[in-house]
Amino acid sequence: MQISILGGTGDFGEGIACRLAQNTNHVIKVGSRDLSKAEEAVAAYQEKVNRESMEQVVAGSNPEIVENADLIIVSVPPQYIETTIKSIRHQIPNDTVVVSPAVSMERDQTGFSYARPDTGSVAEQVAAELPEGVPTVGAFHNLAAGSLANLKKELNYNVIVTSDDSEAASMVCSLIEEVKGLQPIYGGGLANTGEVEAITPLLINLAMENDDMHNVGVKFQ
Amino acid sequence: MQISILGGTGDFGEGIACRLAQNTNHVIKVGSRDLSKAEEAVAAYQEKVNRESMEQVVAGSNPEIVENADLIIVSVPPQYIETTIKSIRHQIPNDTVVVSPAVSMERDQTGFSYARPDTGSVAEQVAAELPEGVPTVGAFHNLAAGSLANLKKELNYNVIVTSDDSEAASMVCSLIEEVKGLQPIYGGGLANTGEVEAITPLLINLAMENDDMHNVGVKFQ
Repeated sequence: MQISILGGTGDFGEGIACRLAQNTNHVIKVGSRDLSKAEEAVAAYQEKVNRESMEQVVAGSNPEIVENADLIIVSVPPQYIETTIKSIRHQIPNDTVVVSPAVSMERDQTGFSYARPDTGSVAEQVAAELPEGVPTVGAFHNLAAGSLANLKKELNYNVIVTSDDSEAASMVCSLIEEVKGLQPIYGGGLANTGEVEAITPLLINLAMENDDMHNVGVKFQ
Repeated sequence: MQISILGGTGDFGEGIACRLAQNTNHVIKVGSRDLSKAEEAVAAYQEKVNRESMEQVVAGSNPEIVENADLIIVSVPPQYIETTIKSIRHQIPNDTVVVSPAVSMERDQTGFSYARPDTGSVAEQVAAELPEGVPTVGAFHNLAAGSLANLKKELNYNVIVTSDDSEAASMVCSLIEEVKGLQPIYGGGLANTGEVEAITPLLINLAMENDDMHNVGVKFQ
């Protein structure tokens, strides 16, 4: 299938694009508001990923890469979600599934905390910005970009998947299973995503307080 | 030392009392508003814990067990915290550390969600109810009562410990290390507790959605 990563040049975009390129045979489209930034990023990812053929990873502007996408990952900071989705919402093909991995955080003198959007979660904000009926899935929130992008690092993490659309959730769970070291868990409806997003500031706090906990992730057992 | 568990007859109280009794030599005092309930609970715990001498576990009313406590665990539902602490706040000895394991949750048709108190977390609410200067620690939030109380179950979980008082945090971390299968992680100041408490409704959602995830806990790795 074709997986299109909006904002695919950021830290998380780099990590997820490289892991998907290394572990799957899907076409990965890396998008940016700025096409030349996307092209530079793809060149860098191609150097990094250790596979004979890297033709599967291509660059484009955010609106361009949405065409023919089976899966769109909205990998932009929460404050850019509204404008990013506005820029692509009329191009979204029928039956495309949209994945929200973003987290809204605040920092004060103690550490990071979850800034819950009025919608209940960033994933629900994404769903609200999309045309009605586009299946939205929350996933990938608690994976450290640094762990994903370091392809020498062996992963062993759970990824919680939330959606009101069970087919869309299954599709994302199957994709996650293709990435070595990631195990999906279905976490229920999209309204359950806030508590998953809230783990991300906690992981940053653990890294700030403990020298040996940089880029940690979560296992539920 | 003496560990006094307010509301020690509830599900979490049972679990933590039995694990502490089985793994440590501390005196465990199990409290309740109703002394006879505490006595019944202690008799049941003594049957359960497989040790030659169980003299270390004793029952009392909540105010009684606070006397001489080195550590007080406030194991009551959030709605009873105010009245419970009011009933014991004048008896709290100097240098007692107070631990908050409680979580505030709501349920709707999708599942459970974290009901963040105005104070930021239940642990901060406990701190606000206590006399000024009593060191308060957040801990034990993400341990399923069912896993703790089933003494045949081998644990392998992290416990995040939050406090503004580093000595109090160290004391609680040391206690956690005494319990086989639990590994403490310092999570920073008490203001970081909300994101730890929020994991508990998520764990319940995972159990509701997945047959094989009852009583799961968390490892950060």
